[in-house]
Amino acid sequence: MAIYHTKMNPKLPVVALVFEVVILILFGIFVRYDHDVDAKEQTNTTEAQKNEFYFRYPSFQDVHVMIFIGFGFLMTFLKRYSFSSVGFNFLIAAFGLQWAVLLQGWLHHFDSKTLTIHIGMEGMINADFCTAAVLISFGAVLGKTSPLQLLVMTVLEEVFFALNEHIAVSVLKVNDAGGSMVIHLFGAYFGLAVSRVMFRDGLHGATHEKEGSVYHSDLFAMIGTIFLWMFWPSFNSAIAAHGDDQMRAAMNTYLSLAASLVAAFAISSLTCREGKLDMVHIQNASLAGGVAVGTCADMMINPYGAIVIGFCSGAISTLGFKYLTPLLASKLKVHDTCGVHNLHGIPGILGGLSGAIAAAFASEEVYGLSLYLTFPTLVPNEESSPLFKRLHTWRKDIEPGQGRSPAEQGGYQALQVLISLIMAIGGGLITGFFLKHTWWGQPSDVDCFEDSMYWEVPEAEGFEEVKTEGEHPLDSQDEL
Amino acid sequence: MAIYHTKMNPKLPVVALVFEVVILILFGIFVRYDHDVDAKEQTNTTEAQKNEFYFRYPSFQDVHVMIFIGFGFLMTFLKRYSFSSVGFNFLIAAFGLQWAVLLQGWLHHFDSKTLTIHIGMEGMINADFCTAAVLISFGAVLGKTSPLQLLVMTVLEEVFFALNEHIAVSVLKVNDAGGSMVIHLFGAYFGLAVSRVMFRDGLHGATHEKEGSVYHSDLFAMIGTIFLWMFWPSFNSAIAAHGDDQMRAAMNTYLSLAASLVAAFAISSLTCREGKLDMVHIQNASLAGGVAVGTCADMMINPYGAIVIGFCSGAISTLGFKYLTPLLASKLKVHDTCGVHNLHGIPGILGGLSGAIAAAFASEEVYGLSLYLTFPTLVPNEESSPLFKRLHTWRKDIEPGQGRSPAEQGGYQALQVLISLIMAIGGGLITGFFLKHTWWGQPSDVDCFEDSMYWEVPEAEGFEEVKTEGEHPLDSQDEL
Amino acid sequence: MAIYHTKMNPKLPVVALVFEVVILILFGIFVRYDHDVDAKEQTNTTEAQKNEFYFRYPSFQDVHVMIFIGFGFLMTFLKRYSFSSVGFNFLIAAFGLQWAVLLQGWLHHFDSKTLTIHIGMEGMINADFCTAAVLISFGAVLGKTSPLQLLVMTVLEEVFFALNEHIAVSVLKVNDAGGSMVIHLFGAYFGLAVSRVMFRDGLHGATHEKEGSVYHSDLFAMIGTIFLWMFWPSFNSAIAAHGDDQMRAAMNTYLSLAASLVAAFAISSLTCREGKLDMVHIQNASLAGGVAVGTCADMMINPYGAIVIGFCSGAISTLGFKYLTPLLASKLKVHDTCGVHNLHGIPGILGGLSGAIAAAFASEEVYGLSLYLTFPTLVPNEESSPLFKRLHTWRKDIEPGQGRSPAEQGGYQALQVLISLIMAIGGGLITGFFLKHTWWGQPSDVDCFEDSMYWEVPEAEGFEEVKTEGEHPLDSQDEL
Repeated sequence: MAIYHTKMNPKLPVVALVFEVVILILFGIFVRYDHDVDAKEQTNTTEAQKNEFYFRYPSFQDVHVMIFIGFGFLMTFLKRYSFSSVGFNFLIAAFGLQWAVLLQGWLHHFDSKTLTIHIGMEGMINADFCTAAVLISFGAVLGKTSPLQLLVMTVLEEVFFALNEHIAVSVLKVNDAGGSMVIHLFGAYFGLAVSRVMFRDGLHGATHEKEGSVYHSDLFAMIGTIFLWMFWPSFNSAIAAHGDDQMRAAMNTYLSLAASLVAAFAISSLTCREGKLDMVHIQNASLAGGVAVGTCADMMINPYGAIVIGFCSGAISTLGFKYLTPLLASKLKVHDTCGVHNLHGIPGILGGLSGAIAAAFASEEVYGLSLYLTFPTLVPNEESSPLFKRLHTWRKDIEPGQGRSPAEQGGYQALQVLISLIMAIGGGLITGFFLKHTWWGQPSDVDCFEDSMYWEVPEAEGFEEVKTEGEHPLDSQDEL
Repeated sequence: MAIYHTKMNPKLPVVALVFEVVILILFGIFVRYDHDVDAKEQTNTTEAQKNEFYFRYPSFQDVHVMIFIGFGFLMTFLKRYSFSSVGFNFLIAAFGLQWAVLLQGWLHHFDSKTLTIHIGMEGMINADFCTAAVLISFGAVLGKTSPLQLLVMTVLEEVFFALNEHIAVSVLKVNDAGGSMVIHLFGAYFGLAVSRVMFRDGLHGATHEKEGSVYHSDLFAMIGTIFLWMFWPSFNSAIAAHGDDQMRAAMNTYLSLAASLVAAFAISSLTCREGKLDMVHIQNASLAGGVAVGTCADMMINPYGAIVIGFCSGAISTLGFKYLTPLLASKLKVHDTCGVHNLHGIPGILGGLSGAIAAAFASEEVYGLSLYLTFPTLVPNEESSPLFKRLHTWRKDIEPGQGRSPAEQGGYQALQVLISLIMAIGGGLITGFFLKHTWWGQPSDVDCFEDSMYWEVPEAEGFEEVKTEGEHPLDSQDEL
Repeated sequence: MAIYHTKMNPKLPVVALVFEVVILILFGIFVRYDHDVDAKEQTNTTEAQKNEFYFRYPSFQDVHVMIFIGFGFLMTFLKRYSFSSVGFNFLIAAFGLQWAVLLQGWLHHFDSKTLTIHIGMEGMINADFCTAAVLISFGAVLGKTSPLQLLVMTVLEEVFFALNEHIAVSVLKVNDAGGSMVIHLFGAYFGLAVSRVMFRDGLHGATHEKEGSVYHSDLFAMIGTIFLWMFWPSFNSAIAAHGDDQMRAAMNTYLSLAASLVAAFAISSLTCREGKLDMVHIQNASLAGGVAVGTCADMMINPYGAIVIGFCSGAISTLGFKYLTPLLASKLKVHDTCGVHNLHGIPGILGGLSGAIAAAFASEEVYGLSLYLTFPTLVPNEESSPLFKRLHTWRKDIEPGQGRSPAEQGGYQALQVLISLIMAIGGGLITGFFLKHTWWGQPSDVDCFEDSMYWEVPEAEGFEEVKTEGEHPLDSQDEL
């Protein structure tokens, strides 16, 4: 029988403090204010309203709400794990965004002359995006890990995330406004891979008595669901190009989500006993439309296109919760506490492929010359080509691209789906093996899904049998 | 004794899926991107910051929060109906906004040349507004209806809503920035009319044991209340004209709400046992100021004017909850679960009349030439009139109006109050008769205000007597 | 034994109604729309996007959420005082913002020609800021006061607040973008002084059985925490200068908060039994970074500077909760229900001093000429000086300042820390003596931390022993 070293002192504080000090030092060495943030640039004195702040900050705040309230409360549905859900989510996200600023800075916009990273509005949004992937993975392992494991997972996962993002942005040069591929698909399969490695027969032999909700925990979870649902248009449009691209991304997401919600209700009622609704479906599958429309949110898919994508993803996601999740656990030994495979995994693939199709069918007829702004890879790579000259007379600041055809761009988009899958599963397996050691303090089988392992827990109303964790026999064997 | 066909399968999924597919087809035929959303218009390439997105999106998101979190959680106060409150609210709103895009598009901005509806930022806000009316009506029938009835009510109510809105906007040409008349008054009386038709003596003979709150359900409801309260300035200013009109609408609403809240506390303490406060009053009457200032929010009513309106509406609303609601049920057989009559009905009338008065006293002395922007109907209808020429030298883009006097405009405003009442009550009665048939699956008397009729409900803390609905004797008689 | 006059009727309604009517009259006499809100100014007709509304409204709404949801729910952690926490917070804030408009108007931007106060976007934000100080003080006396006392405290505290703010803004001319000194430090020590005067041996002899949380009340409190945490960047940047100053204030706060959260988790685990986490620390100390970076948020402290400030304040704040709060109560007879000393007091001092240091080291080398915009007191006071001429060629609208050196400005900043402390403690002591009389209806010792004193309270799940307050023997002696 395994011995679980669940006492977090001094492991957790030491690791957290060391991590934070390292981050501080790296910020001191590398990170400086970007153009729009630096007093010396005197952007105040010219046209202040052109500061990126006014184009992006409202969207950023919405994304911030999704990360901290949305993901945090969505996971509070477990009856005895709400402190951990919202608390560890808080820790992971706040720590992760600092680490993400560094990683994304080094990989995507490192100023090699001054050896600095300049952080601005987009940097903040992208850092939040990066933590979203970790929080998705957290959903797969929810209730089965220690806060220390989660901190380490954050450090490792963000490295793989940044590498995959680098491939998407700088190598394959794909469009992925809402991150269907680089955030959702990646986060889901990474978490599932970690969960696979850490699978324990003892834990998953029967349904764990604490792996379920109570009435009010489901209501807290709905706070998370609804904030995610409402602000997803901001998520998908937060880093889209200014103007119509950003507006289109918001609108397509708005419509896709509405359709996905109706589909989730319908399929939930269709598949449940006596046509009743299942809160798990409503809490999760209603959001699938936001994931699935992510890659093509800023493309000209038309309002009805957004509804088609939302409708299909909502329906498929609900079916996944009903039929696929139990199979994954019993057949493939992949236990997925929050069902991230149904909310982020499958809709992420669907989103990546929808983006590939939408890109492949993009044309000047539909986009006008804006085609070359939405897809800069379609700009010819030679300045002497007639098309480039035509573009140059339209906009002086146009730069040579890759000269891809829309179909080629579609191919690259599809390739990124595959690469994201490989990076996620590979990274997740490596991370899982690393985290498997009991030194990291994961809870024993009976103590999973239980806050009192890592939190001082007050009495609960109508929940007399709150066990104080100090009495647990395994703890006395903890001798770090 | 009536037989209740409460089993929702396959009625609910089939109807929901058919509705959604019909909406998809209609979107495919009719709905296209508006100017600021369409890549081909190349608004990106000129001044992106003039895109409507940047003027309206933050307000839109606030409205969105009011619709989904605000209304959704405000209704969670019932002890055993929180899943349904927040869940059905979610369904109605997400379905309703799609239907509203179509209805409002056909009636208000149908491009008869291309046979298309162009949807942009205002279209999204107006669609949310339309669903607000349905959600208000939902408050009147809360706990007594099936999700299927609510879906059908949404379809029908939005038709009446759009017709009434058409009269207000295009026929009478009244101002109603925050929708006191077309949203709040309409939604309240529509819901009350439906509730009247569906009145059941068996249900309302005595106070239903489940028609009350528990400690934490009241707290969840406060989440709804406070988000409504905070973001109401955005609601009333969301579609006001750019610049000072929008700012004024926000400020007047901010002040009106503050005064209405103080009045609600004072009158609640004055009328309750030993001066204690009643959560129902605080949850609802504190919001009356937002409703009552809606029509005149963008007019020059002055800060003190806003406070007067807020103060009166908060006081009247609290008195309504205390004395009027019980009378409505016992004397007029109108049962109003959430008290929408006090929060939206009376304050809506008050708001409509305040708007009529404010319009009747509008003058060039107070507004300057902006008078003719806030009230375009006051612009002369003949281009040869001296006033029109004066306006034309000021702004080249001024267009002939109706040549009304302020007093006439006030009269039209007052007329719209009456018309909204008639449309709401008429529409509600028709809808109520249609929905009365038990085939729609409304709950039996004892099963009202109970989530387990339509939801898989987990155990509740300290709520041992959770009845599983499958054991209910009436269910076996369900034989659709 | 003291007799407690806890019956609120007619005391509370009469006082509230009189206050509101007085405010209405004063608004009628003094308050008018500001430039950007007034129709007559016709700002609509020129460049509407330059209306202050579009620069400030999203930030304002975030601040609004912090005031009403953030502070309101943060204090719901007590097991039987959630109605009062969120409800009285609601009342204080809504009443207080109206009073603040008047006080701040008279003191800071009174138009002595027309004898009017012009209210605009900044006025609304500043009014919300002023109520924040009162809500912080509320945290110190939470559970031990009647709503009537809180109303009166609001009236008095805001006077002292406005005086102190006047000294900071107009006399010492210090920078305090996020209000570390004038809001947080002031609110905390004011509340502590009130709490000191009202200290009761009977109440604080032993730990009160109701002065603790239950499982779900801690979750409600996390809603408050997280909304405060997320929107603090908007709080600190809401009234910063347009452009890079505003952006910098947001970014520095974002980073400081992230570091402070990691520190709070680490120190909480380090100091608690078996390395467990304490919800009180997470709920509060994670926010200390927002307070501590407040004064220097818009200065060029660099990203790593923000992280240093956040990290230190998060760690110190957690240690304060663990070791200082019990000492304050037992040794100094200062009972601090919410621990505002640790969240707002110490971090406020830290913030004031950080601001002094940052100002003292400010230089043209780092800020460029923007130095004289961020610190207008550094502009020479004589137009003939060479520096002034140089500035004038750069910006025609530059105005003579105080000709301070950065070191002098740092000295003034430090002086303001001291003055805020004196004003807060002095004002708090005066207010406390005034409120000490039992006529104001404070609860008896056993009735502290109990909603049913001032609210109609429904049954609670699993909380059978709800006492109806009418049965309380002391009440019958209430004979107002």
